[in-house]
Amino acid sequence: MTPIIINGRILFNSVPTGFPEPGKTTIYDTTQTIDLESVALDGGVLIKVLELSVDPYMRGRMRDPSVKSYAPAFVIGEPTYGFGVGVVVRSENPAFKTGDHVYGILEHQHYIIKKDVSRIKVITNPNNLPWSTFIGVLGMPGRTAYMAWKEFSKAKPGETVFVSTAAGPVGSLVIQLAKKDGLKVIGSAGSEEKVQFIKEIGADVAFNYKTTKTAEVLEKEGPIDVYWDNVGGATLDAALEAASKGARFIECGMISTYNTGGEPVFKLQQMFRRSITMSGFIVDDLYPKWTEEFEATIPPKVASGEIKYREDIYRGLENVGDVILAVQKGLNKAKAVVHVADA
Amino acid sequence: MTPIIINGRILFNSVPTGFPEPGKTTIYDTTQTIDLESVALDGGVLIKVLELSVDPYMRGRMRDPSVKSYAPAFVIGEPTYGFGVGVVVRSENPAFKTGDHVYGILEHQHYIIKKDVSRIKVITNPNNLPWSTFIGVLGMPGRTAYMAWKEFSKAKPGETVFVSTAAGPVGSLVIQLAKKDGLKVIGSAGSEEKVQFIKEIGADVAFNYKTTKTAEVLEKEGPIDVYWDNVGGATLDAALEAASKGARFIECGMISTYNTGGEPVFKLQQMFRRSITMSGFIVDDLYPKWTEEFEATIPPKVASGEIKYREDIYRGLENVGDVILAVQKGLNKAKAVVHVADA
Repeated sequence: MTPIIINGRILFNSVPTGFPEPGKTTIYDTTQTIDLESVALDGGVLIKVLELSVDPYMRGRMRDPSVKSYAPAFVIGEPTYGFGVGVVVRSENPAFKTGDHVYGILEHQHYIIKKDVSRIKVITNPNNLPWSTFIGVLGMPGRTAYMAWKEFSKAKPGETVFVSTAAGPVGSLVIQLAKKDGLKVIGSAGSEEKVQFIKEIGADVAFNYKTTKTAEVLEKEGPIDVYWDNVGGATLDAALEAASKGARFIECGMISTYNTGGEPVFKLQQMFRRSITMSGFIVDDLYPKWTEEFEATIPPKVASGEIKYREDIYRGLENVGDVILAVQKGLNKAKAVVHVADA
Repeated sequence: MTPIIINGRILFNSVPTGFPEPGKTTIYDTTQTIDLESVALDGGVLIKVLELSVDPYMRGRMRDPSVKSYAPAFVIGEPTYGFGVGVVVRSENPAFKTGDHVYGILEHQHYIIKKDVSRIKVITNPNNLPWSTFIGVLGMPGRTAYMAWKEFSKAKPGETVFVSTAAGPVGSLVIQLAKKDGLKVIGSAGSEEKVQFIKEIGADVAFNYKTTKTAEVLEKEGPIDVYWDNVGGATLDAALEAASKGARFIECGMISTYNTGGEPVFKLQQMFRRSITMSGFIVDDLYPKWTEEFEATIPPKVASGEIKYREDIYRGLENVGDVILAVQKGLNKAKAVVHVADA
């Protein structure tokens, strides 16, 4: 007989007005218990959570559910969730067997019973990479970088690209893809440690936007033909002012605006003055076209070390709320991963 | 012997900080004289100006010349200029003969000696349309509407388009093209008279943005699949909030920002939330691809009345400065034309 154990969970508790507050926006709940051997699965799968991804976009789910957006809102009193990797403990679904690793949308709790398996899939690891890579360079962030770069950059050798949040899991892969395509690469981040990493992965110019003005760097090193925007606001204005004629702006995210209700942009006149094309996208829409190529190309290069990545691993499910805040504030040093269990 | 006559000119006098001020930003100068029969042409062409176009983009030329942009800055002490129609008085260039009508960039003065003829061309008028149409529905504004609609709208029957400044020479042709393509058309303008005109040319929904909130109209009548932006600022924000997934935004101009240094835009998060593509353009870049089709299609439809246009004709070169201001303030009732001479 296995003991009945506490099944810790992160619950969404209230809609924040500014930055999310751990203990208020989310709470760590220990009131639920689970008996792993006897809990009824009703045809579902019992998953033990191993790795959880914490990403900037999650702030968008912390909203009043009446506000429509591409990702559904978190539900007050229910667990928060996001991409993760887990291992199957028991299964009544023939597509999943004990010991299988799964990737997909996982609730932020130690154990999950999934009856609807539409958003998880079994993954194999032929290159024997850390499971955390499946939520980073091989997961949604890596796919975002690869697929949108292929779809929208129209990059030509000799052109110049500017990548904001360049030390993150998306930006750092964009940097490396742009270098492979023969571009001059300018990257920005918010700490000296991140700047050092950006240089290590090949950026020609790397700077700390907190100590050096983005506009000054772009005036000196530009004009820019491609801008990978993860920031919005004043950084986007600086990029608009530094754009070459016919520049492509890839609108991936706007971290500067998530916790403020919107940071203004003033320089959109450059859209027609410089004939700029700006493409917003949701990576899900690019999966059908690019998944096969991504999976054939990127995992072997990550395994060989040709493509580099960095993770900032936080240990313990109870810390998810703090990590969410750290990511919104940019305090994480690299791709944020919450390591929940070893196996 | 012809008399020596005064050759009135509009001179650029000072860079405005806000709206241009007639008499200060531009002055009407009568100090130059010309002898039409004996003035030396040095191989050039003597043109009598008939019609001059006054357009919103002209504000962009009234800047410090150190600021780069797609159109060169006006030069202090020199005549302002823009699209116009004139007639050849005398010519020493075999490509132009007396009586030919010409279209192109003309200085704002009664008579011009053009030695560089690279920006003017002889026009014919087989449909016997007013010469003013060559600077309106058949000129740069009409070509802007037609070519960018064809290039960027990706319009499908049953979709919805919102056109700002819909009573102007660009917007009013966009309205008619969109109706021909089977779209539901929403148009806005700044007076009841303009709203009436928008309805007459086929808009399904027409409103006065000064008395009705754009956001409310778009919430009721949207979502919008295409936005034709001539305004920027708060109107662009309203369009972003009302965009459907995959919407196309055509960035033609931003009249709200020209005299204020930039009106902020807050809602660019919708770029990725709604997978919006925003295309800025300069119409010159579209000419090679679309001119032939435009010239085969549009003039006969204008002549037959199938395509409607409206002009607000001001008489007298000396009024150019006032008309420039009126256009920046939206006080003109339709496409602004300065009628300088009859023939």
